[in-house]
Amino acid sequence: MASQPILLDYWPSIFGMRARVALREKGVEFEYKVGDLTNKSPLLLQSNPIHKKIPVLIHNGKPVCESLNVVHYVDEAWPDKNPFFPSDPYGRAHARFWDDFVDKKFSEAQFKIWGKKGEEQEEGKKEFIEAVKILESELGDKPYFGGDSFGYVDSLITFYSWFQAYEKFGNFSIEAKSPKLIAWAKRCMEKESVSKSLSDSEKIVA
Amino acid sequence: MASQPILLDYWPSIFGMRARVALREKGVEFEYKVGDLTNKSPLLLQSNPIHKKIPVLIHNGKPVCESLNVVHYVDEAWPDKNPFFPSDPYGRAHARFWDDFVDKKFSEAQFKIWGKKGEEQEEGKKEFIEAVKILESELGDKPYFGGDSFGYVDSLITFYSWFQAYEKFGNFSIEAKSPKLIAWAKRCMEKESVSKSLSDSEKIVA
Repeated sequence: MASQPILLDYWPSIFGMRARVALREKGVEFEYKVGDLTNKSPLLLQSNPIHKKIPVLIHNGKPVCESLNVVHYVDEAWPDKNPFFPSDPYGRAHARFWDDFVDKKFSEAQFKIWGKKGEEQEEGKKEFIEAVKILESELGDKPYFGGDSFGYVDSLITFYSWFQAYEKFGNFSIEAKSPKLIAWAKRCMEKESVSKSLSDSEKIVA
Repeated sequence: MASQPILLDYWPSIFGMRARVALREKGVEFEYKVGDLTNKSPLLLQSNPIHKKIPVLIHNGKPVCESLNVVHYVDEAWPDKNPFFPSDPYGRAHARFWDDFVDKKFSEAQFKIWGKKGEEQEEGKKEFIEAVKILESELGDKPYFGGDSFGYVDSLITFYSWFQAYEKFGNFSIEAKSPKLIAWAKRCMEKESVSKSLSDSEKIVA
């Protein structure tokens, strides 16, 4: 008998939230183990000895590590409901390209906004807005990045929970710079899989 | 009628070689366009406007960018011959995890060996050997990373073409530190798809 999957997570993690959204999009019940990053659990260290990072999804006793990999795995392990990828090879490659962009460009830029000061922070703001503009152009007039339904690239929604923190630390308005991305984010937030998975922005700012 | 794919590449690129190996593993004929990184072609800039980097595989007029994404695409577009991934979701996630490890850890460490000097270079050598040890432990006694046949993770073989350069720049012997990985590399080099795709090590050193 297949056991219920276990998600090792940390509450404010954008990457942990990705795994939560993916599991809820598939309607998968999971055991949620929220850890403390300053005192990593033996289960986390044993499940991800290479990177020692959350999220880790343990399914049938086997650990899957790295958030995009977890999302990908969830899609393949529960293929019947809400597929995250298009079925054609080009569409799939296109989706992977954009999630890689998010992890490389968007993720690095946002870190500079809240993790750095002065010149580096200003550079981060500039890169962040550039990345947002590129993402808005990719979104175009579609409701979701993949088209009419929520998919792999839309998992970038989890960054939205930190937007308030970026605005506070960076002293700028994201909505003024990127109204289309904000409209998309609000659309995603209407989905229970998303709203239930994203941590409270006020708590993150605090 | 489907047109012959075009590969935009640069001869010493480890990442370009990945795409070459993948296409040859599948027995796909392709048009090979070797560019000059100091004077990027209009076709490259138009095909990969975001990163402006090779490799790009243009298939049926559509560009696929980023080397692991190209390998993944090649596997999905030509699924019948030599599948690069196992068929089960966990095995697939496991393969993606290790290629991500190679791109994050191995790739960064090797860059420090030939691209940096002094303390940073020494750090690079240390990280490189650590990464090699981890990879050797993952390989274990299997002929290839995926088991009995060449697969997704084995595409890391393209780094082997630079080993001679790392040894020269870093003044150390990789084989002395990692005999099992070298034995695996030599095994991969017996495959025509690999030996035909890897650029000449002497030329890279020069």
